[in-house]
Amino acid sequence: MYNIGIDLGGTNIATGIIDENCKIIAQTSVKTNAKRPFDEIIADMVTSVKEVVNEAGLSLSDINSIGIGSPGTIDSQNGIIVYTNNIEINNVPITSKIKEEINIPVYISNDANCAALGEVYAGAAKGKSNAVMITLGTGVGGGIIIDGKIYEGTKSAGGEIGHTILIVDGWECTCGRRGCVEAYASATGLIRQTKEAIQANPNSIMNDLIEGNLENTSGRTAFDAARKGDAAAQKVVDTYIKYVGEILVDITNIFRPEILIVGGGVANEGEYLLKPLNEYVQKFSYGSKYIFVPKVERATMGNDAGIIGAAMLYASKN
Amino acid sequence: MYNIGIDLGGTNIATGIIDENCKIIAQTSVKTNAKRPFDEIIADMVTSVKEVVNEAGLSLSDINSIGIGSPGTIDSQNGIIVYTNNIEINNVPITSKIKEEINIPVYISNDANCAALGEVYAGAAKGKSNAVMITLGTGVGGGIIIDGKIYEGTKSAGGEIGHTILIVDGWECTCGRRGCVEAYASATGLIRQTKEAIQANPNSIMNDLIEGNLENTSGRTAFDAARKGDAAAQKVVDTYIKYVGEILVDITNIFRPEILIVGGGVANEGEYLLKPLNEYVQKFSYGSKYIFVPKVERATMGNDAGIIGAAMLYASKN
Repeated sequence: MYNIGIDLGGTNIATGIIDENCKIIAQTSVKTNAKRPFDEIIADMVTSVKEVVNEAGLSLSDINSIGIGSPGTIDSQNGIIVYTNNIEINNVPITSKIKEEINIPVYISNDANCAALGEVYAGAAKGKSNAVMITLGTGVGGGIIIDGKIYEGTKSAGGEIGHTILIVDGWECTCGRRGCVEAYASATGLIRQTKEAIQANPNSIMNDLIEGNLENTSGRTAFDAARKGDAAAQKVVDTYIKYVGEILVDITNIFRPEILIVGGGVANEGEYLLKPLNEYVQKFSYGSKYIFVPKVERATMGNDAGIIGAAMLYASKN
Repeated sequence: MYNIGIDLGGTNIATGIIDENCKIIAQTSVKTNAKRPFDEIIADMVTSVKEVVNEAGLSLSDINSIGIGSPGTIDSQNGIIVYTNNIEINNVPITSKIKEEINIPVYISNDANCAALGEVYAGAAKGKSNAVMITLGTGVGGGIIIDGKIYEGTKSAGGEIGHTILIVDGWECTCGRRGCVEAYASATGLIRQTKEAIQANPNSIMNDLIEGNLENTSGRTAFDAARKGDAAAQKVVDTYIKYVGEILVDITNIFRPEILIVGGGVANEGEYLLKPLNEYVQKFSYGSKYIFVPKVERATMGNDAGIIGAAMLYASKN
């Protein structure tokens, strides 16, 4: 039995076909060109599906389901992308439009949910039933897996862990609230904190790394300078780790999952990030002297997680 | 079919028997006397069970299950009270001890979970499958109901909504972390904020209400004075409502439940509290322009919720 996963991104549409062992056996990628009419994007998704089926030496009758991971607010029950600021679509009944072209069951969920499901089926959380993943990228995504299935909440509008509070009345968040996790713990938030530290410490190694041009600041700048022994950079890193640690403690206290998974660009810092995060969660989780505290582990599937998770949506929905 | 619920509190052990409509048909209450040997407490629980069965004109063979709501950290799968600071017990295998005396299935969960389940079966959330309840009392309790069942997490250690972050590096919490919801949004937190405001505003109506003695400050002081038009008290109330609002927005963004229930002593402020909370949740929940936002409603079952929820644990566990 084979399933197809489509990772619909703001830049690329990545489509893959997976076998029964959740291995991707064929895949393709086309540019999203997000500004064009959405019907054209759907047509490219349909073409991509047919392409990977051919490439795998299969026919459409071998395919059990198609799953889509999409950014934004998804009404997964009705197969509708309600709203996303990455692609110019609102209230598009995407699953039924694809089903018109290919008569196979089509499922959809948020891309962060699919990434978490992919890690559960094939990555860091393989064999676990309860896992929560956060993605530290441009924003902070959240994916909650309970009993092996995505937890989405009413109208699929839950799971927005990036939009929980870290500091009341804190920095403005893109969602209209102040002090959200995303404002501080995203790569965007890290860059903001790094820039502030550079301006306050013009002699820091961070300023050398960006060649004196704040525009060159990235999510790596503070980590790289801290590794070279820069005190101001270390302070940025410590504060950032505390912020991420606080989210992970919150997730632990609310869900007490079997595992906490960290993905996204910032997770590339590896043990330099994960070791202190594990210590933080162990120290501050509720009742950690008496009861189980989950390990923090790095996502292992990279972009494949989105495809595999999308392909496995059928199992999460049934 | 009848089920028995035992609400094991630090002060009283309240035991009730419910019918198929979740109506309490007989109940009894004895003092916990929390400092005595726990075997004596268990003996009183067994006696209470037999009492309510007699009082209802039934025999033990009419009883389907016994459920216990207990404070503290509960390993519900193994029927063990792992730790509670209210009663002198650690690692007591309570369900098997009761089963030794009465051969009926015995279930246990945290008391906040039972209260939430009681509201779902018979109170504010009747007919709903997904609900989250917070209890604003000495601490802040949380009960999460997903698909009609209590969500407990690994080793039953989840659901601690009171121990999620509100302000990084904020006030110390009893759990060892800083800035938890419980530190600010509990009645204890409200009293602290009220006392600070009284000291800063000795001419406020709040100071009259407590007759100049800070020890008389209660969770009602600021609300009562605000209703009389006291500006300093209104500020305390507004800040407190913002704190509770932030938790409820977090719960909405994470779970998007069908309903948010507020219980505990502070909920007695009624619409004076609920109206601004509803406005807050409507305004700040993620994507509230596009998608469903749950209503905030007051718990309606009072102490009965704990008994009814405990009695219905069998349904939550199967």
